[in-house]
Amino acid sequence: MPKIIEIHTPGRGFTNITRDVQRELSGTGLCHLFLQHTSASLILSENASPEVPVDLETLISRIAPDGDPAYRHDDEGPDDMAAHFRTLVAGHDLTIPMQDGRLMLGTWQGIFLWEHRAHPHRRRVVITRVPESA
Amino acid sequence: MPKIIEIHTPGRGFTNITRDVQRELSGTGLCHLFLQHTSASLILSENASPEVPVDLETLISRIAPDGDPAYRHDDEGPDDMAAHFRTLVAGHDLTIPMQDGRLMLGTWQGIFLWEHRAHPHRRRVVITRVPESA
Amino acid sequence: MPKIIEIHTPGRGFTNITRDVQRELSGTGLCHLFLQHTSASLILSENASPEVPVDLETLISRIAPDGDPAYRHDDEGPDDMAAHFRTLVAGHDLTIPMQDGRLMLGTWQGIFLWEHRAHPHRRRVVITRVPESA
Repeated sequence: MPKIIEIHTPGRGFTNITRDVQRELSGTGLCHLFLQHTSASLILSENASPEVPVDLETLISRIAPDGDPAYRHDDEGPDDMAAHFRTLVAGHDLTIPMQDGRLMLGTWQGIFLWEHRAHPHRRRVVITRVPESA
Repeated sequence: MPKIIEIHTPGRGFTNITRDVQRELSGTGLCHLFLQHTSASLILSENASPEVPVDLETLISRIAPDGDPAYRHDDEGPDDMAAHFRTLVAGHDLTIPMQDGRLMLGTWQGIFLWEHRAHPHRRRVVITRVPESA
Repeated sequence: MPKIIEIHTPGRGFTNITRDVQRELSGTGLCHLFLQHTSASLILSENASPEVPVDLETLISRIAPDGDPAYRHDDEGPDDMAAHFRTLVAGHDLTIPMQDGRLMLGTWQGIFLWEHRAHPHRRRVVITRVPESA
């Protein structure tokens, strides 16, 4: 049965969840992480420099600005529609190979939950493991 | 054997195909949806507000405009290259966890086929189910 | 055990790896390709026109420019942060259905490794096959 973990976010920004995911794994095949939301992302990003998240934020805010005058959908505030488009661009799930329960990530890859809404949220991640072919 | 369903699109815009997909499923594991095209997308999007698709269209048209003077590839018209870049940004496939044949979507998540070409098309979606690990 | 292949890139640009992937496959289910890097992408793209890659490059360079004055992360040069954002937008992995060892690609879909860094690199692709449900 797929497992669900909850991640509490402090509002817009990045939370490294590599360890939270790693501890749920076993076996060899694929690990799939699925966010049950349309306003936050799961991404792989450079895990060493604290400047990379700052620059990712700068770049995505140019193509998905808060409070754009063209938005029709703003029920929940100026970050509402921006969060939906950020999710479209940055994605909401990850599929990662694993061997004997270890994620086969590159040296610089870490798993991040990217909260796109301004305020703190509780986010649900569904973790599914599937076996490789014989 | 992976199953193929065909979706007829009315030209650029969104078609909710959540039910079309749901009826093909059984078992627990992952469901994978794959569009065999480079000018349309499969996305998860907010399924309640009719304004969200309008705003997604506004935002993506800014970064993938029709008839941009810089395009070299325009064999099939001003929406040709725009459609390819939209597909790159918005994606062409989805992987969704399922339990006992039910998609484990969040409350606000629906599955949409996003047609990027101006004219109606017939689009092929390959549905593959894989079992979770024991 | 997932298999790793290495692709040598000539610097920024596209390398068609469809045949390199195809020869590693067998069985029916899903094939997953995973790049262990945060500055290159795996994408499906139109495989016929040499103009499409040129236009993809034009469009992505507008939203992820080299040497943007706003970047804080530039340890490895002006293409460093641009490469990370390009990877976020264009993706780092692919999941493709296969039947009896054949990729179920559409007529116009080819698999490309898109190098985002200016200089040549050696890139590792993890190939994992998973079986479909019974």
